[in-house]
Amino acid sequence: MVLNLLETLRTDKPIVLTIANFVTVQDVANGLNAIGASPIMSAEALEAPDLVKISGSVCLNIGTLTETQVAQMKVVGQLANEQQKPVVFDPVAVGASNYRYQTAVELLQQVKVAVIRGNAGEIATLAGSDWQSKGIDAGSGAGDLVKIAQTCALKYDCIVVLSGATDIITDGKKVSQIHNGTPLFQLHVGSGDLLSSLVAAFTAVQSTDYFDAAQTACLVLATTGQLVAKQMTADRPGTFAFELIDKLHLITTEEINKIAVVD
Amino acid sequence: MVLNLLETLRTDKPIVLTIANFVTVQDVANGLNAIGASPIMSAEALEAPDLVKISGSVCLNIGTLTETQVAQMKVVGQLANEQQKPVVFDPVAVGASNYRYQTAVELLQQVKVAVIRGNAGEIATLAGSDWQSKGIDAGSGAGDLVKIAQTCALKYDCIVVLSGATDIITDGKKVSQIHNGTPLFQLHVGSGDLLSSLVAAFTAVQSTDYFDAAQTACLVLATTGQLVAKQMTADRPGTFAFELIDKLHLITTEEINKIAVVD
Amino acid sequence: MVLNLLETLRTDKPIVLTIANFVTVQDVANGLNAIGASPIMSAEALEAPDLVKISGSVCLNIGTLTETQVAQMKVVGQLANEQQKPVVFDPVAVGASNYRYQTAVELLQQVKVAVIRGNAGEIATLAGSDWQSKGIDAGSGAGDLVKIAQTCALKYDCIVVLSGATDIITDGKKVSQIHNGTPLFQLHVGSGDLLSSLVAAFTAVQSTDYFDAAQTACLVLATTGQLVAKQMTADRPGTFAFELIDKLHLITTEEINKIAVVD
Repeated sequence: MVLNLLETLRTDKPIVLTIANFVTVQDVANGLNAIGASPIMSAEALEAPDLVKISGSVCLNIGTLTETQVAQMKVVGQLANEQQKPVVFDPVAVGASNYRYQTAVELLQQVKVAVIRGNAGEIATLAGSDWQSKGIDAGSGAGDLVKIAQTCALKYDCIVVLSGATDIITDGKKVSQIHNGTPLFQLHVGSGDLLSSLVAAFTAVQSTDYFDAAQTACLVLATTGQLVAKQMTADRPGTFAFELIDKLHLITTEEINKIAVVD
Repeated sequence: MVLNLLETLRTDKPIVLTIANFVTVQDVANGLNAIGASPIMSAEALEAPDLVKISGSVCLNIGTLTETQVAQMKVVGQLANEQQKPVVFDPVAVGASNYRYQTAVELLQQVKVAVIRGNAGEIATLAGSDWQSKGIDAGSGAGDLVKIAQTCALKYDCIVVLSGATDIITDGKKVSQIHNGTPLFQLHVGSGDLLSSLVAAFTAVQSTDYFDAAQTACLVLATTGQLVAKQMTADRPGTFAFELIDKLHLITTEEINKIAVVD
Repeated sequence: MVLNLLETLRTDKPIVLTIANFVTVQDVANGLNAIGASPIMSAEALEAPDLVKISGSVCLNIGTLTETQVAQMKVVGQLANEQQKPVVFDPVAVGASNYRYQTAVELLQQVKVAVIRGNAGEIATLAGSDWQSKGIDAGSGAGDLVKIAQTCALKYDCIVVLSGATDIITDGKKVSQIHNGTPLFQLHVGSGDLLSSLVAAFTAVQSTDYFDAAQTACLVLATTGQLVAKQMTADRPGTFAFELIDKLHLITTEEINKIAVVD
């Protein structure tokens, strides 16, 4: 695991194009900015060619998808494929409606993605595993999460990040688990969306090894959250949200290494 | 007044579907999450059937309405009616344009709403009362606010929440007034939108008495804001915003009961 | 320079209609509200006539432009021109795609704007100067920023605000430079969008001298940010964001005058 990716990111400041969930978009932009990347959002397919060209990577987030936005995602995703820019896919609440599921599958057929990042319910839905999703929440199920992530990765031939209390990163065979984090992530809407765009930011500076990029993104966010939570005397989701932005800007490789628990 | 509704909400964690005002949507999602509900937002009518099915209630907010969104609201509202899921309506700035007013009236004709939540200017506009609204602000007028709220409730045959320095809850006859709160709510854009979605959250766990649900939502938010404001040494709207999210998560029934002033 | 404009704004509380960038819209609304203006946002051209009528000024922000939104901006801008309401234009990331550039130029041909507010890269792009923009960031170049701003102002016959470490305000001849501020503005996405809408708020209360209005808006935001930053012991972009909202509400003319460095 190559943590100097964080230094590379802060030096290169890659532009990350997010086709965004409008619920969490400001937080995602501020989080990308805080870590050292340069966020750009767009809602118009007509500017996709130029925006993909200047971007280091792309994140497609279906959190508030519409027919128009899905058409834009296809254009953006295919341009990224042509230009060999990595694409990260966030299947927000993919189990909540049949429309989301069908759309997600169609997108995954038409766009080659480098990484899928979702919670247990979302990854299980894509993997075809038995699971009870609940709206935007992870829900619960009896399955083995590592196996579910691996199934999803093999099915879509990409890296899968199944994030939660433990983050699981896999290419279908190789598995890494990150045991850092804090339950406060669940109390703040948009933690997952931010992680997806951070994964995209790291793929922009590590285009030969998306597994490594995804693992680094997870470790950076999980340890940042953990350090913020450690300072808190009660569960304060509003405070957590802005202190997370603060700490994403300030966190050092040394701080991360000191508390990292990675299998 | 049954404050254990708050406990029920925190146990049941109902999914609340908000067709949202994009200005305030992140705050509304975080507020719903903090109190213990599960927020979901959507902009695509095609997924309305599934999303209404998994939701405990629906909130329709016209703050940034478009022709497309209004069409979606009708679909969502009518599906909710069919499935007997309560609908809360937030007529943001309904007095600011004739288009908003016509659209709001049309929506209220086509969708049966459980609760309308607005400020004095918005409720007066819907009631047909004499009032000077001012953009998104409450404006001013000479009318009796209780009477205005009652007129609106009788006109649309629903519960009306007229929120402000004093929150008025009425079914047209019965009236409750909540004297808790803080002027800081007016300094933070989106306080009203959040209240509307919180009312929706409480109707999801109290489907037999929307008056009680609305009253509880108002009391919870008003006392939460009051407790936050009490700690502040100056009017800090930015601080108020995130501390309100913190306190929505932490507030207890005991804290609320200790300061509640309800007629 | 007439700082009592701030008092006038706080007394008059003008309604500012922003056709918004959805990434930063909540922050812009809260910032306008904190300074004492009344924000309203809209996404539907059908209500433009009424909204322009009640507004003191208009801000058009192309940060997340779409074909639909651009059509709405033209309607809003032309109505504002007819009703002699000042229009402020924010050419977010205008150098990032040819589509943005063509759209911006077309808008500037069809709508007479009072003020253009952008960063160095954006103003240089509009001026036709040599500059390396980078996504939403200012980028870098060898040109003389004052000359670039003047060129842009003469080309579009309006006031130009080129904001950055030093804010430059010019009508093409006359130049004012504001040396207040803090690098933290760059760490918080949306600082520029907020400044544009604040400029609009000040033009609403100073309709005979847009140069003065723009200069006042820049000075108020720059000094507010500087005072917030002075209290901080490390670069905390999340904390900066909410404390900026706090301080916009609390800052006094005296505090501003004490630290103002204006050429």
